[in-house]
Amino acid sequence: MNCKDLGKEVHMRRAIYLAKKAWGETHCNPMVGSVIIDKYNKIVSEGYHKRSGYPHAEILALERSKASKIDPSELTLFVTLEPCSSHGRTGACTNAIINSGIKKVVIGSLDPNPLHSGAGVEILRTAGIQVTCGILELECRDLNFIYNHWILYNRPLCAIKLAMTIDGCMAAYSGNSKWITNSEARQDVMLWRRLFPAIAVTQNTLLSDNPRLTSRIENSSDVRVSCSRRFILNRTLKDLETYSNYAVFNDEFREKTTVVYGEKVDPGRLNIFENMGISGWEISENANGLSIKDYLLRLRDSNINGVYIEPGARLATQLIKDGLVDYLFCYQAPKLMLDNKAASLGFNRMSESMEESFTLFDLRRINFGEDSLIRGFLKNN
Amino acid sequence: MNCKDLGKEVHMRRAIYLAKKAWGETHCNPMVGSVIIDKYNKIVSEGYHKRSGYPHAEILALERSKASKIDPSELTLFVTLEPCSSHGRTGACTNAIINSGIKKVVIGSLDPNPLHSGAGVEILRTAGIQVTCGILELECRDLNFIYNHWILYNRPLCAIKLAMTIDGCMAAYSGNSKWITNSEARQDVMLWRRLFPAIAVTQNTLLSDNPRLTSRIENSSDVRVSCSRRFILNRTLKDLETYSNYAVFNDEFREKTTVVYGEKVDPGRLNIFENMGISGWEISENANGLSIKDYLLRLRDSNINGVYIEPGARLATQLIKDGLVDYLFCYQAPKLMLDNKAASLGFNRMSESMEESFTLFDLRRINFGEDSLIRGFLKNN
Repeated sequence: MNCKDLGKEVHMRRAIYLAKKAWGETHCNPMVGSVIIDKYNKIVSEGYHKRSGYPHAEILALERSKASKIDPSELTLFVTLEPCSSHGRTGACTNAIINSGIKKVVIGSLDPNPLHSGAGVEILRTAGIQVTCGILELECRDLNFIYNHWILYNRPLCAIKLAMTIDGCMAAYSGNSKWITNSEARQDVMLWRRLFPAIAVTQNTLLSDNPRLTSRIENSSDVRVSCSRRFILNRTLKDLETYSNYAVFNDEFREKTTVVYGEKVDPGRLNIFENMGISGWEISENANGLSIKDYLLRLRDSNINGVYIEPGARLATQLIKDGLVDYLFCYQAPKLMLDNKAASLGFNRMSESMEESFTLFDLRRINFGEDSLIRGFLKNN
Repeated sequence: MNCKDLGKEVHMRRAIYLAKKAWGETHCNPMVGSVIIDKYNKIVSEGYHKRSGYPHAEILALERSKASKIDPSELTLFVTLEPCSSHGRTGACTNAIINSGIKKVVIGSLDPNPLHSGAGVEILRTAGIQVTCGILELECRDLNFIYNHWILYNRPLCAIKLAMTIDGCMAAYSGNSKWITNSEARQDVMLWRRLFPAIAVTQNTLLSDNPRLTSRIENSSDVRVSCSRRFILNRTLKDLETYSNYAVFNDEFREKTTVVYGEKVDPGRLNIFENMGISGWEISENANGLSIKDYLLRLRDSNINGVYIEPGARLATQLIKDGLVDYLFCYQAPKLMLDNKAASLGFNRMSESMEESFTLFDLRRINFGEDSLIRGFLKNN
């Protein structure tokens, strides 16, 4: 890292900031931001990708730079993601850049698709453009961890959210878990609920908390409420009689709620949901209940590239054990519950060594007052 | 915080650095560092407190400043801890400062003793010296968290060290715990072993790991080995036949090893240790084994102001439950063991709510690669 790169980081950070303006709204496309500066490091124009089907970030920045009347050869374009080199709905960005006359391009992270990764850079360089890569690469990559996983593996990123004490307790023995973490940490959950195109909980969560599963983000002056697709996992659709009481079936976003049930469901129970106008997905069952693997396939077929599951200890253990969790959000409070009968992860696996643990990688840590979030990909062992 | 304070922080940070040169060597005195600067912010002289009975940091800095021949009224003295105002073995530092002719003093943290706190500042101000307090206060206070506790409560700080996965496992089901954390985190333990005047483990740790309990700190060129008082907690002095095999009874620091046993110990077993020339402490017993409360009193009577216990899950739970732990060092690895039969904290307390948890405060966090340390005082609930 030299001083020149530090200067570039400032503009790349601005591009990331711009990309995040479309937080959660670009699926199945990535979030991308772009900044164009003149030879005095002054910003000439900006752009970000608003949603699928809308112009790409660098195209917007290029268009807007024209008003400046500055000779394009004096401009430098920053973009958080390698420009596309294939003709999609919007035309290849590499062509647009070459045609613009810009001679310097700075890129955050490369295209995650191994088949295309570096192709855009190559095309630009062949056209005589000076390309710098890898500025704030980790941040730029992290911005699209859902998208990248989707592109790499052609299946949705399955993330789970846990909150626990440092001794691993997810609730008191009584089941009470309000609250493990502070309000700042709980507010952070809202950001991820907004980012993911789908959220899933079991009926137990519905029964105990009656959550709305919306994302409520409070600014100084207003509250912005949004709602991703909401999935209620309930093999038998039992406890139906009370379902009409729950927020997710009654609020203004009710058409975003889907019940996910097993193949042996009672048709009568299913009928109640159909009459309520609530959509349903039938998936296969296995010894542990609903086949989450099947659910994830169904998400893929519905073009939903990531799901944020808020599971209890039992489901979380099952999912991790079965190798179905790609990403973990673990909120931690600096507390010791010291209750070995309280809800916590684990089954009687009788592990032999620490090598048998499931390890997080590409870690990100952030503190919320005394609490913290550690998040990362899960390496299934 | 204004710009002037930021300037002061630079010098206070240097004073903290100096204080740490005597890391673990000043008990039962605090670590203190001092810097004197001229009106151009240039360092004129420095000093730190080396060990009990040696000159105080500010006295050394004052003495050394004389060589500069600068008019003392143009100098500013920085010191990490409020200068003492009572005549100890070294004379009151406040007098020395007043007599020196220095007119500006900057202090990190106040005297922890409520009876003296602020008295030194008051004396200096009354003498017409301009005193600024609270520069890097948290850091300066943290420097002497053992000493401060000793002064405040007149008993040793009881600290425990734990290493665990984020789901709270302290070992595999088999008992294997090599290693939960990485080498960088384990190296950090060496720093704390050096800081504390005493270290304690149970015989189980001895039996399974045969640790030396020394502090081995590796620099680029050499390894510095030191050893605090080592205590082996063993109610009955059982498993004696093999004791002669253990490092703590045989290495070059063996006179620093003390066995701590219960009042019902077999005299024959005790004899073996006496013959080996290993010192012993008899303490009372309770339903759970050795009375750690009694052990802590014995430490106090021996003028030992802090102990670093490296307990297993059972002892750690007992100590926390009994309200005997003042300070917790919790190393964490971003791993999930997912084994609810593996060693972890807790007993069957059947907690009703999260309010029943034991909470850490005055938190400090540091990362070691992927691992982390969270440390802080334990608020017993």
